[in-house]
Parts: sequence; structure tokens; C-alpha cells
Amino acid sequence: MAKKVSKIDVLIVGAGPAGHMLCTWMARMGIKTRIVDKRFDRVNSGQADGLQSRTFEILDSLGIGQDIWRQANHMLEIRFWNPDERGAIHRSGMIVDTSPGLSRFQQATLHQGIIEDHLMGYVKQHSDIQVEYGLMPESLSIDTEQAGNPDAYPVSCTVRQLVKEKPSDQPNEHGGSSVPNGLYRSNLAADTTDQMLQSAKENESSSTEEILAKYVVGCDGAHSWTRRQIGSVMEGEQTDFIWGVLDIIPITNFPDIRYRCAIHSAAGSMMVIPRENKYVRLYIQITQTDESGKVLDRHQISPKTLTQAAQKILSPYKFSFKHCHWWTAYRIGQRVGSKFSANRRVFLAGDAVHTHSPKAGQGMNISMHDTFNLGWKLASVIQGRCSPSLLETYDLERRQIAQELIDFDHQFSRLFSGRPAQDILDKEGIDLKTFQDVFEKGNLFASGIAVNYRPNMIVIKPGKSEAAEKGNGAVQHVEDANGSTYASDGGKRLSNIEIGSRMPSHKILNQSDARPWHLQELLPSNGAWRILFFAGNILDEAQLSRVKTFAEALDAPSSFLKKHTKLVENWSSVFELITIHSAPRVKVELLSLPDILHPWSDEFGWDYNKVFVDDMSYHEGHGQAYKNYGIDASKGCVVIVRPDQYVSWIGEMEDVEEMNKFFGAFMLASS
Amino acid sequence: MAKKVSKIDVLIVGAGPAGHMLCTWMARMGIKTRIVDKRFDRVNSGQADGLQSRTFEILDSLGIGQDIWRQANHMLEIRFWNPDERGAIHRSGMIVDTSPGLSRFQQATLHQGIIEDHLMGYVKQHSDIQVEYGLMPESLSIDTEQAGNPDAYPVSCTVRQLVKEKPSDQPNEHGGSSVPNGLYRSNLAADTTDQMLQSAKENESSSTEEILAKYVVGCDGAHSWTRRQIGSVMEGEQTDFIWGVLDIIPITNFPDIRYRCAIHSAAGSMMVIPRENKYVRLYIQITQTDESGKVLDRHQISPKTLTQAAQKILSPYKFSFKHCHWWTAYRIGQRVGSKFSANRRVFLAGDAVHTHSPKAGQGMNISMHDTFNLGWKLASVIQGRCSPSLLETYDLERRQIAQELIDFDHQFSRLFSGRPAQDILDKEGIDLKTFQDVFEKGNLFASGIAVNYRPNMIVIKPGKSEAAEKGNGAVQHVEDANGSTYASDGGKRLSNIEIGSRMPSHKILNQSDARPWHLQELLPSNGAWRILFFAGNILDEAQLSRVKTFAEALDAPSSFLKKHTKLVENWSSVFELITIHSAPRVKVELLSLPDILHPWSDEFGWDYNKVFVDDMSYHEGHGQAYKNYGIDASKGCVVIVRPDQYVSWIGEMEDVEEMNKFFGAFMLASS
Repeated sequence: MAKKVSKIDVLIVGAGPAGHMLCTWMARMGIKTRIVDKRFDRVNSGQADGLQSRTFEILDSLGIGQDIWRQANHMLEIRFWNPDERGAIHRSGMIVDTSPGLSRFQQATLHQGIIEDHLMGYVKQHSDIQVEYGLMPESLSIDTEQAGNPDAYPVSCTVRQLVKEKPSDQPNEHGGSSVPNGLYRSNLAADTTDQMLQSAKENESSSTEEILAKYVVGCDGAHSWTRRQIGSVMEGEQTDFIWGVLDIIPITNFPDIRYRCAIHSAAGSMMVIPRENKYVRLYIQITQTDESGKVLDRHQISPKTLTQAAQKILSPYKFSFKHCHWWTAYRIGQRVGSKFSANRRVFLAGDAVHTHSPKAGQGMNISMHDTFNLGWKLASVIQGRCSPSLLETYDLERRQIAQELIDFDHQFSRLFSGRPAQDILDKEGIDLKTFQDVFEKGNLFASGIAVNYRPNMIVIKPGKSEAAEKGNGAVQHVEDANGSTYASDGGKRLSNIEIGSRMPSHKILNQSDARPWHLQELLPSNGAWRILFFAGNILDEAQLSRVKTFAEALDAPSSFLKKHTKLVENWSSVFELITIHSAPRVKVELLSLPDILHPWSDEFGWDYNKVFVDDMSYHEGHGQAYKNYGIDASKGCVVIVRPDQYVSWIGEMEDVEEMNKFFGAFMLASS
Repeated sequence: MAKKVSKIDVLIVGAGPAGHMLCTWMARMGIKTRIVDKRFDRVNSGQADGLQSRTFEILDSLGIGQDIWRQANHMLEIRFWNPDERGAIHRSGMIVDTSPGLSRFQQATLHQGIIEDHLMGYVKQHSDIQVEYGLMPESLSIDTEQAGNPDAYPVSCTVRQLVKEKPSDQPNEHGGSSVPNGLYRSNLAADTTDQMLQSAKENESSSTEEILAKYVVGCDGAHSWTRRQIGSVMEGEQTDFIWGVLDIIPITNFPDIRYRCAIHSAAGSMMVIPRENKYVRLYIQITQTDESGKVLDRHQISPKTLTQAAQKILSPYKFSFKHCHWWTAYRIGQRVGSKFSANRRVFLAGDAVHTHSPKAGQGMNISMHDTFNLGWKLASVIQGRCSPSLLETYDLERRQIAQELIDFDHQFSRLFSGRPAQDILDKEGIDLKTFQDVFEKGNLFASGIAVNYRPNMIVIKPGKSEAAEKGNGAVQHVEDANGSTYASDGGKRLSNIEIGSRMPSHKILNQSDARPWHLQELLPSNGAWRILFFAGNILDEAQLSRVKTFAEALDAPSSFLKKHTKLVENWSSVFELITIHSAPRVKVELLSLPDILHPWSDEFGWDYNKVFVDDMSYHEGHGQAYKNYGIDASKGCVVIVRPDQYVSWIGEMEDVEEMNKFFGAFMLASS
């Protein structure tokens, strides 16, 4: 029988959070995509559960964030428990979980399977892409000669249909309990990928197919098969700290069981993460040696040993449960892949290129952020809108974040696994004040909002050398040589819009119907670049005249709006021009503004959803967008926002030539 | 062939908004229900579109309000247009649409079919009830001797399966346009129910079935068949004012096309109602006579004549469209059914008992409110929890609202159809100042929030005679004889909680995890009565002692909590006790409060979702619930809230005996 051969734009290996998020872009931007997973069904229990502020913003840009937000358990406050002088735990402090004002959303928890269901629902709504389960790649090669040809399908990948032999339920190793056990997927277990493949090959009814793809993305987890094919190796360190995880409905008189708790006790540390539906996840530190002094192996870990450890830590409070949903254990380590891609044709994302401890609730988040970064770039290149060089920014940006993540996790998890300091001279013990400080700073990182990409072709930071950036995580602003200003404090930077960071959100009103919107609600993930035009006080004649000049420059045939969109029916599918002025709403008439700000259609008339105003709403207060962004209403400014909501460039309305140059550097002129 | 006979608890005739809403209660409370509709499919275009604040609150209590709210077009501001001295229209004023602070939701518009889809989705989630289309009742009889027997099925209804002959698309009478035409369902068209039935009877393949039901509810619209069976007649008046309706995507330079507009022009009146997906609904006054002076008949009305009328009214602005979704015309009239029910066994709801003009956006809302009122009562009686006498309150309460509705509509629609006054001496013309005032007051009524039921067995107003109530729509408060107080202003009433009105909503925090909730979010429609226990400042020892006494009284075997719930596993499925205290959150320990306030379960431990606090939140401000409700924190109070969120009773925590008496009057002691 001839081997089946098929062609596809993108092949995604692995249907976890990273793979599903990548699918959302492919579905929305109409890219021919297949996604395969060696498992036979979706995740039903356990795995990740933490959802960070930035992840909610991303999910909201897909229209599914609000539902997930309502279903999730919200974590508002963290409570610290420490041993008192007699060794019993007592509540020693409490802090807010997510800093107020950072985002519309705060840290929350919800089972990974539900998130994946929502992502799959979105993909189904926009495409016919479906996860192909029980399909596993067995060989991958890149035709390097063709890698530079945009029309080629240079990646060949043979996939094998696995044969489902018996229910995939993993028997519990300890006493036959039916509680799902995550150990077999944890880093305490060996990689069984090759065995699976070998046994599939020996099965006669297993078939193969050759897939020729333009791009392959490995989202296949910590034991990534794709990673091995491109010779990327995980670099970093592994510790001996072992932690167990229990998903249970607690029966307890511990008073803070519905708060996120960091507990240090004489018997070890524990983290309490309240979940949806009465569940609570416990991260429990396990003694690394057994009673005879031997290092524990994974067969000695069970729900019973974890429960006993939790009871000791929580003592004198009582603790038991009747419902356990999942359990696992893992060894703490922080590692990053040596390569994130090969030949700009094969990419790695998620756990396939970074592993770390799960306690900061980052796993599912950073993985989804990886492919949220990659997806629109891949789609734009495949559509012929952008040069393949754009794809280099994926490696640059996400390696930076992976490195920041493991640096953070290294510090965070060691603090957490250490024993409390006994007194000020006890240098090996962890000073609890330090712990709380690190925890507080860690939460800002963990929110995902602090991400600030270093300069690259789509992150243009004026006057800032890349070297200066690299040496220092803190953001430095250097004034531009021409000394022009658009910020209310007179500097050429905005107090609350960072180039390289995601665009913050404040409420503004639609000029045409007075409806309030959070700015981010106007930035759905559809592949369009946004030109946010802060037009200032347009009742001022001089300012209105500047606005008209800006509109004319955009309307010229040489403008980026026209130059890169000749092949599409309507420039607004590639670039969306959103105006936000600061004059009183009731004094402004939409139709008195230049046409390009509210484009005309012969079929639908004027567009009433492009001009907004920073004004008081009837029912939801005043967003004070100009004030909060730090924009001077007498000047205004222009902000270029990427399809993934990150800020590329900030300039003045006279800088259209600079904007043309910006887009010209990576967008193809469609002629 | 023997006629098929089946038994059912509730038979619903008609699957419009009233029928669907009734199904939600039946589904949620587990009542055996069938719902039939003579149409062959659901509404695809046209019909109602206005959603009022109270309707959103109700939809939110089903968990579907937020999705609908996001899909809907929000109407924030009303703009008034009037003729200037030269006869051209000009913008003469603007007011807020829904008064700020009234509700979490404001008036919005969304196609009726989408609302019905959401309701059907809810019903499907909770039951296997499905609309049976093409099924039409042909006879109904009540066995009056059995009507008083709770175990009987005294209503016999024969239903006939209609035969679908051809696509039900109604041809447009004017030029064969394919635009759906609502005229055939408007009050300008004759009732064709009998013809449909007759032709079905003549078709040999049409079959019948006898349904024996405990209850039948007629939600079968303005031409209600059920209404005729119980001898209820529509009483009221019909006018000669004819209005047309166009659902279009406007192409226009009229500047306020995305605002709700009330336009009076020399050429007639028009109302602009912006809709979702770029659509706008226009209500257009039609000249009642044709060019020869003859009164118009419905065959002279078409999209073309409506468009021409709209163009004249909007002149000098341009108006056209390329997309029309639906159109209709209707004659204004206000009528109420002479009977709302028969033998407490057959009930009427929605358009079947009240008709009015659609311009105030009330139709779909009041209809859904009717069955939202009826549903939980019917289910409670069928479950054996409550005496059938409870059902009398449906007639009392909803007839009151129907009457208020048509009184409002009478005034509103005549003002709207009149011509503008030319000067102050022109007594027949409508004074535009008066119009705007009525409009503003009308909006409060139209929001649905102003509903205040008169005293009855489940609306206990202290010291207020029914006569005084009936004579005056305004609410009067009379102090109780014993002079006790629980309000912060010293009176025995609460400034913002009206007995007989729906419980207003303010934000409070969960004591156990600091998550903010709007009070109404804690009152989902599941059939439970809520005891809202405003415990006050429980850090005060005297107050805490009162709280403990209250808890003991509730825990006694003679308490309503225990007396009426012996048959159910857990009293909290019938009564939910929600505590809201006003002490600082971080100073209170949940487990130090009486157990009954956070009930214990051997399976799940303590209940962490019953005790709340009026305190500052981290991210959503301070709800100031005590202040906004007007409750004195040093006293506290108790509010009994019905399963439909209306307030039955307000008292002090010493009044448990009064609460026992209240529930004893209509709840059956389950022994």
C-alpha cells in the first residue's frame, strides 16, 4: 500500500494549552492546520490550574475570557502561616494577591481541561480544525534548500496512527485507588515516548502518513519528541526537592482554606490553592528521605503519604477529605531549551522548551503565551503579508521570557522549599520577611503583565541600545534627540504605556452611542494591527488641523495603510485605525471628523465603531484614559499595537513617515 | 386506532418568550413538563427586541444574563428631535436612557430569537424538556370536581399534530421581496388559528393525542387559543394610529442613528432603536389615510411605503438601506384579559392576557416576567411544598402589572402619535416638554425595577391597608405600632429595600475568600427562599449575642427552617440563609460564628459560601451595602426574599416567630 501523503500549512504536535492556543490564531486567520496528539483523549483531571491576569486578557481577546473568569475561583488575598515559638503554625501576615490596577482580571484557578474546552469551542466556531488523537510523529526532516522558499513545504513529518489497546486509565500504584494519578506524566517518571512508538510499530494494524508542512510547531510537553528532532537540549539544573500535589475537597477547621496560603511549618512547607467547585489544591513538601535515611523514590509517594504530610504541616488543625480528584509529585528544576526553532520552519513552545516548578501557577500561562506570540506571526507570513524574518522575533521574545521565568522560579521555589530561619544568625534558614517580599514581587512577574520585550524589528524603543536593555531588566527611557513631547509630563514617553509591553486598558466611550468599552475589548485577536490615534482635544482648532493633516497623510497612496493592503478588499482587515479623542462627547459630531477615521461602505454606510472618547459614562464612571496613559490632551499621540496587543511604537501624528518605515521593514508591499 | 393518552404535570401552550421562561423554572425544579407550539420552527427574524434592566437581572439569575448583555446593543442615551421654525428637524434635547443606580444592567436590544436560544440552552442543560413544534391544542376541559385534589390531573387537552405542507416562508405581498414580513402576525391581520386547525383536521395524516395535565399555561400570544377556552376576553380599546416597523442597516447622514431617538416632525413621528450587528429598528408613524382620503388598509403598507415615510420624517438628512431583516405594521391598542386563570388549573401569560404597543420595548419583557412570577409558584405547589392558594398571587400580582402597563402605554403611545403643538395655545398638539417628562418617567416604569406588588400572602407590608395601596401608586410607609427600628434613619422601613419590590443589589465580599459578589449573584433562580440576615457589627458583644439567639431560634425544631423541610435531605435546598455582617472582614473568623450560618456537611466540611461582609474589596471598590440599603449596622435586620428575588418581609432578628407564621401561612409542614 502506498504511503498516504498530504500537504498542510501548519502541523501542530501536541494538543495541550500551547497547541490549542496556536490553533485559535490558525482558525481565526484561516490557515490550513492539523493538530495531532499521541493521547487518545483530552485531559480530564489534574494538570495546570492557575490563570494569570495576562492570560485572562488574552482569553478575553478571543471572546471566551469572561466565561472562564466567571467559572474560575478568584484568588484575592494570600495568607502567610509560620511556626510560632512553640512550633505550632499561626497566621503571620496577609497581602493582596494581584496588585490592584494591574489588569481588569486577577489571578484565578480553573481546571486545565475546561480552558482547553473553551479554546476548542473557539476553534470550532472559526474553522474545521479538530484535534486528531492517537496520532504520533515518528520522523521529521527539513529540506534546508527549500527552507527559504515561501511557496515550499520543506518539512516532512511521518505520523503514525496508534492503536488503542485498553482504557488509557493509569492504575494507581498504591492499593488500586481509582483516583487519577499524575505521576506517570511528572518529571519523576521516565520518558516512555520511544516505547510507545516502538510498540505501535510492532502492531500490524498501525498505519502511517507523510505530512508535508510549511511549518511544524512542537507543543509536545516536557518529554518533547519534536525538541529531540531539531537537536534542542534542555539546559539548567534539577534539585532534590520533591513536592506532592493533592486535588481534594478539604474537611478541615484550618481557617484560611479558601485563601491562597503559604505555610511554613516545622514539618515542612505547603501551599494552599483554592479551586473551583469546593476543591483545593495542596502543594506539599515531602521529606526527601525515608525512615531509614534513603532518598525517596516515586513508588513511595501516594495520596496516603501526601495526606499524612499535610496533616503534620497543618497541625494542630484537623485535615481530611472524602473527595480526591487527582494527585501527583514532581522534582523541582529549571531548564530552558538550547534552541527554540530550526530553519525558521520548526518551532518549539510551552513545556517543550522550558520546565520549572508549578507552584507559581505559570505552566499553562507561559505555554499559551508562547503560541499566542507565535501564531499571528506564522499566519501573517503564510498569508504573504509579512517577511519570514518576522519569525525571528518569536525566538528572541520568548527565550527572554523563558529565561526570566526560570530565574524567577529558581529564586521562588528555593525560598519556598527551605526551612524557616531560626534566628537572625541562622544563615541557611529562610528569613520570612525576605520570603514575603520575594513573594510580593514574584506576583507582579507571575501576573504576566510585567513582560517587556527587548527591542527588535517590531519593538521600537527610541534611543535605547539593545546592550543597555540586556544588561538590565529595569526599563530605561532615553529622550529622543529632537526633544518633541507627547506625554503630559513633557517627556517622550508615556507614564503608563511601555513600548514592548501589552497595551494597558482603560474605559472609553463610543462617540456614536455613548457605550463604555475597556480599550482592550476593542483589540480582539483577529490578526489586525491597531493604530491607536489619541487625537486629543479636537475642539481646539489648531489640534483639529493637525488631525486633518494626519488623516490626509494616512489617506495618501504611499501610506502604509494603502501600500501593504492592495491585495485585500479593505485596508481595515489588516490595519484598524481607532481614534480616541478627549473633547466632550456631546460637543463632537462624528461626521465632522475626517472620513478615514470612520470609514464609509456602500453596503453599510459609515462605520460607527472607530471613534471613541475619554469622557464620563452614565453608569460606569470616568475611565480617565488620557490621565492614566499619561497623554497630553493638547498634543495627542499615536500608538502602534501589534495583533497580540503589545506596543510596537509610540509617536506623534506628524510621524507618519516613521510609521511607513516601521511597517515597511517587515510587511510586504502587495502590488 | 385508540387515541394516545399521556399524563404530565404542566402543559405549556406556545413557545415564545413567556413559554420558554416558564420552562426554565420547570427544568430547574424538576417538574414534568411539555411545551407545544403550532409553528414548525423558532422565530428567525423580527418580533421583540427590547430588554429591560429587570429582564437582565432575571436572565442573570439563570446564568445567561452576562452573555446576552455582551451580545446586546446597549442604549445609553435618548435624543429628541423636533421641528424648528422652518419645519426641519433639529436635535432638541438628550437624556439618559436608564437612570443610573437603578440596576446593574441598562436597557439594551437583541433579537428575540437569540434570547429564546439562550433560554432553550438553559432548559436543555437542566432537563430533557424540548419544544414540540407543529403541535396545536384543539380541545380543553377542566374536571372541576377534581380541581381541588392535588394528586389529580384535572385538565384534559387534546393536541393535534399539524402537517407541514410547504416552507412556512410567508410571501411578501408587495412585489415578491424575500424580506420576512411580520404583518401576518400583527394585529392588523385576522386570527387564522381556527382555519389552521380546520385544515389540519381535514388532512388524513394528522394525528391527535390526549394530554392529562395538572396544569395548563397558555403562552400562545395575542390570538391565544387557550384564552378563548377559559372564556377570558380582552378588554380595553383600540386606536386608529398605525405604525410601521423596519429592521434595517441604515445608510444615512442622520447623526444620531446609533442613539435611541424620539423624532417628531411635520411629516409624522418616528422612533429610532439601534440594534445589534449594525441593525436599527425604526418605528414609523403612517398617515392613516391614503391620497384619496380613504383609511389605509394593511395591503397598502410595504417596506417601500415605510421607507418613504421615514425619508420624509428624517429630511433633510439622507436615508436608505441595502439590508432589511424584517418589517411589519400594527395598530395601537391597550387591552387586558378579563380572566388570568380558571380553577387555579389553567393560567394565561404574556400577550395572551395583555396587548399594547411595542414602542416602549415592553412586550418580551413583561411576558417573561409573567411566567417568571408563575413558574416557581407552580413548581412549589406541584412538589407539595406549598398550598395551591399560593397560585392566587399570580393573578393578583400580574394583573396589577398588566394594568399598570397598559395605563403607561396608553399615555405614552398617544403622546408619541400626536402631532407637535404649534404654540402654547394649541391644546390638541403635544407639548414637547410634557412629552420629554413623560418619556423620562416612563423609562423608570419601563425598566421593570419600579414594580411593587400590593400586599398579599407573600408580600407582608406592616401597617399598610390594601385600600390605601390601591388608591395610590406611590408607596406609603406606616410605622409599626411597637416602634422598633432597624433602619439607619430610625424608622421601621429601609430606604432602599421595598417590600413587594425586587431586592436591590450591592457588592459584598465572601468572608472566606474576599471575593466580591453583587448580592443578586447570590440569588440564582433555583426555587429556594432566601433569608438575608444582616447581622450588623458582630464584633460588638451585645450584637453577637443577639446573633447567637437568632441562630438558636432558627435551629429549633419549631423553626420554619426545620418544619417545612422534613421531607428534603437538607433544609438549605428550600431555604438559604445568607449572612451579611458589617464588621471588618479580617477581624472576623468564619468558624467563630454559629454553625447554622455556615452549615456542616460530613462529605464537604463547612460551607464557605454563606457568610458575607460589607467591606472594601481589593479591585472593585466598596459596595457600601448597609449604607445603600439604609440598614443600621448596630441593629441589623432580616429580609425574606422570594425565589423570584422579590422582598416578602422585613423584620428584626428577634422576629423568628413572625417568620414562622409567615411561612406557615402557605408552606405545608412536611411530616
